[in-house]
Amino acid sequence: MNYSLDEICERIGVQFEGNGTALIRGVNTLDSARDDEVTFAEASRYYEKASQGEAAAIVVAEDFPDMPGRNLLRVTNPRFAFMQIMEMFVAPPKVTGVHPDASIADGAILAESVSVGASAVIADQAHIGAQTVIEAGAYIGADVTVGEGCHIGANAVLMHGVRLGDRVVIHAGATIGGEGFGYVWLNDHHHKVPQLGSVQIDDDVEIGCNSCVDRATMGLTRIRRGTKIDNQVHIAHNNDIGEDVIIAGQFGSSGSVTIGNQAIFGGKACIADHLSVGEKAQVGGASVIIKDVEAGAVVFGMPAQPKRQTFQEMAALKRLPELIKTVKAQEQELQQLQKLVAELCGKDGTPGTV
Amino acid sequence: MNYSLDEICERIGVQFEGNGTALIRGVNTLDSARDDEVTFAEASRYYEKASQGEAAAIVVAEDFPDMPGRNLLRVTNPRFAFMQIMEMFVAPPKVTGVHPDASIADGAILAESVSVGASAVIADQAHIGAQTVIEAGAYIGADVTVGEGCHIGANAVLMHGVRLGDRVVIHAGATIGGEGFGYVWLNDHHHKVPQLGSVQIDDDVEIGCNSCVDRATMGLTRIRRGTKIDNQVHIAHNNDIGEDVIIAGQFGSSGSVTIGNQAIFGGKACIADHLSVGEKAQVGGASVIIKDVEAGAVVFGMPAQPKRQTFQEMAALKRLPELIKTVKAQEQELQQLQKLVAELCGKDGTPGTV
Amino acid sequence: MNYSLDEICERIGVQFEGNGTALIRGVNTLDSARDDEVTFAEASRYYEKASQGEAAAIVVAEDFPDMPGRNLLRVTNPRFAFMQIMEMFVAPPKVTGVHPDASIADGAILAESVSVGASAVIADQAHIGAQTVIEAGAYIGADVTVGEGCHIGANAVLMHGVRLGDRVVIHAGATIGGEGFGYVWLNDHHHKVPQLGSVQIDDDVEIGCNSCVDRATMGLTRIRRGTKIDNQVHIAHNNDIGEDVIIAGQFGSSGSVTIGNQAIFGGKACIADHLSVGEKAQVGGASVIIKDVEAGAVVFGMPAQPKRQTFQEMAALKRLPELIKTVKAQEQELQQLQKLVAELCGKDGTPGTV
Repeated sequence: MNYSLDEICERIGVQFEGNGTALIRGVNTLDSARDDEVTFAEASRYYEKASQGEAAAIVVAEDFPDMPGRNLLRVTNPRFAFMQIMEMFVAPPKVTGVHPDASIADGAILAESVSVGASAVIADQAHIGAQTVIEAGAYIGADVTVGEGCHIGANAVLMHGVRLGDRVVIHAGATIGGEGFGYVWLNDHHHKVPQLGSVQIDDDVEIGCNSCVDRATMGLTRIRRGTKIDNQVHIAHNNDIGEDVIIAGQFGSSGSVTIGNQAIFGGKACIADHLSVGEKAQVGGASVIIKDVEAGAVVFGMPAQPKRQTFQEMAALKRLPELIKTVKAQEQELQQLQKLVAELCGKDGTPGTV
Repeated sequence: MNYSLDEICERIGVQFEGNGTALIRGVNTLDSARDDEVTFAEASRYYEKASQGEAAAIVVAEDFPDMPGRNLLRVTNPRFAFMQIMEMFVAPPKVTGVHPDASIADGAILAESVSVGASAVIADQAHIGAQTVIEAGAYIGADVTVGEGCHIGANAVLMHGVRLGDRVVIHAGATIGGEGFGYVWLNDHHHKVPQLGSVQIDDDVEIGCNSCVDRATMGLTRIRRGTKIDNQVHIAHNNDIGEDVIIAGQFGSSGSVTIGNQAIFGGKACIADHLSVGEKAQVGGASVIIKDVEAGAVVFGMPAQPKRQTFQEMAALKRLPELIKTVKAQEQELQQLQKLVAELCGKDGTPGTV
Repeated sequence: MNYSLDEICERIGVQFEGNGTALIRGVNTLDSARDDEVTFAEASRYYEKASQGEAAAIVVAEDFPDMPGRNLLRVTNPRFAFMQIMEMFVAPPKVTGVHPDASIADGAILAESVSVGASAVIADQAHIGAQTVIEAGAYIGADVTVGEGCHIGANAVLMHGVRLGDRVVIHAGATIGGEGFGYVWLNDHHHKVPQLGSVQIDDDVEIGCNSCVDRATMGLTRIRRGTKIDNQVHIAHNNDIGEDVIIAGQFGSSGSVTIGNQAIFGGKACIADHLSVGEKAQVGGASVIIKDVEAGAVVFGMPAQPKRQTFQEMAALKRLPELIKTVKAQEQELQQLQKLVAELCGKDGTPGTV
């Protein structure tokens, strides 16, 4: 996938003055870009580094200083313009059709232009929407519905009855539709609570490598439109995750959690069962949520509480060992004072008689 | 799978007075149950919500108020009765035999009524017990023993020599028998300690999606009868996990850990190497265990300590920033008092001379 | 795999006096070793336990007490000698050739003596080095390069373009080359930042079961020579992990993290984006790194800080509830003193007039 510099400039709306026929083979970082790659310098403080590189062209802001002999592509928003160039180099998923080594049940229903990799398995009554790509070794269980334009990664697993909207991406090794974790103690053993519900994942959701989403005990575990989930995340049974939520790696939820639209979770955060996190709340990495988080709140810590409070407490805690010494010293000073004052007060112990 | 309302009532020992021929197609939550589903209301406070729903019948306690025009199924323990109804709707694993796209080594030994999904692989000298279901893409390594009535999820991996009892469930994507993590520094590199042991998982154990159980360096990593493990849990080499233990998602153990029977671990807890947790201990979610936990103890926190103590410390910590101010103010008041008292004590500094 | 006791003694340089023809079938722990197994007793305090066992021979230090009637193999470093014996019992990966149920693209290039398990898939233009073993169900994507003597576990996934050096071990279920987690908010939705980079894993690296390494946004996510990574670890996009680093289970990194050579991470630690950890730093388990860690530093805690400081703070925190009471009592004593002194100071409030 190559483009002329002219084509790239046209894409980001830059009027290029120099020779635009040079062939551009990709994009790269300011450090590593070669002379057939485009890079970007986000701010003037990168001028030095930019001038030392070899990049064929550098996307910069309007006010970036001139750099004689180098191709600067001046735009209003360099980061966004550069992302547009990056998108020119994204290889579309190859629509290769159904590999002869895939195993498709007779009762599975595949729309047009579906690709299925080798060793992938599609079970009975699964419905696969048009343009969807199922990579090698993935398993699509019975009665699963996958929408159009989805991408199911290698060795990912969609268990029976799971439903996916359109343009859903399930990355490699993720398992969707495992049984919720529920037992009751019955006489002398843990007795499994049947997990009869399912999972519904709406349009434009993305779920990372080796992540898990459990089916509901009854009803649905739901992940709503546009939500993006990173690797090794665990979403428990009966969660209701809102729209456009961001969940970074290794987050874990307990059963029956509700998360509002556009909430953001840092990596490794977790949340206890039956709690809710409001819309647009921001939860710092590694936070442990043990009570509801209000909409718009910015929380952090174990336990999660307003971020400012946690940092105040952390700062205070650093001073605690010293504080303990101070209080001990005060104790002695107080005792000495008490003794002095008692003597001052005279024999009958009242100050008036001194 | 459908039942008449009469069949359902019979199962839970309820004498149903009305028309019991209505067809029940499933169970659902109080909110979502439709007119061909049964639901349950655990306490009288759900009366309002129950009366607004459409459920064909509602399982309730003996003392639940009447609800004219609705089918209430009165029982002693509504939650348990409802679970019995749920179990009527659990689909048994389909015994489909060995799929033609499965790959079974000539030396593998399969008992009767074993099912093996497409793309699953069973290596040489593996023994698979009767009624066991191996889902698509699962890998059963050489010399593995799987008991009767087990369920091995899609793309799960049992490495060479691993031994499973009867009715063991290994969920999708779990890997059992990986090498323990052990190295010694040898001159100029980390040298691998051979991992020659194996894993034994006893009857009625369940291990969640994408969880890992490592083989022992020597001897066995052992998970004993009836223990239930959630998703994305990591059990390290040479662990000995007792019977009927509950381990929630994303728990992680280090090497040579011992856990007593009926201990309970909240999600994301972890434990350092060579430690032990006693019988029936309860470890709160996200706790970090850095010393042994006694039998019956209830611990929480980083580090894990008696839960009550952690909550006391958390409460105290909230007051710490204020406390620092208080102590500083006291410092000043003390100094002022010391000055006053010194003056009171007169020229020779003894109170007696005032 | 069996050896005579003589062969074992020869391997560790011990001059054996007794009958060395006994057949040794393996190694085991002091507790469990049978009479055809060798074990080791690391120190004299294990004498009692050692004498009660049945082991055919016991590797001990030079100064271990005599044990009449038992075969003691005296060496300078018992742990190391024992590891040498263990290595005699490591089964080499079976070079079985390409299984007929593997799926190899026409354009894939396999060197000599490559083994590929059933249901494994090798895509177009993948290069597999000599002596490499690819287990059942693994997926090797297009344009992937795997060096010589590598071992790719069952159901592991190497996505397109990933590059592996020689003797790299990727354990079962690991996914290498997933997309970095990057989005920008565009008007009304999270817009994906293209992830155009790749992953390079150098010689002698080992990556544990169900771990994930994401590809770079641009350039490379890099894991350098000799680094050992445990199970369920998440390495994010654009990380640069140094040589001979040790990373225990469930560690998680954010984007653009840099880690120096020979750093060590305990299990479940994590690190925020764009941070660096210096060479030979030691990070305790479950630590949460929110600022750079210097070379050689020993850190622990949430947040990670010098380990000694965290333990001091933990100890101080235990005393905080009591401290709050002490300060409150001092408050009252101070007030009482202030009142007494005020009275002592007389009507005009100056001590001089008493």
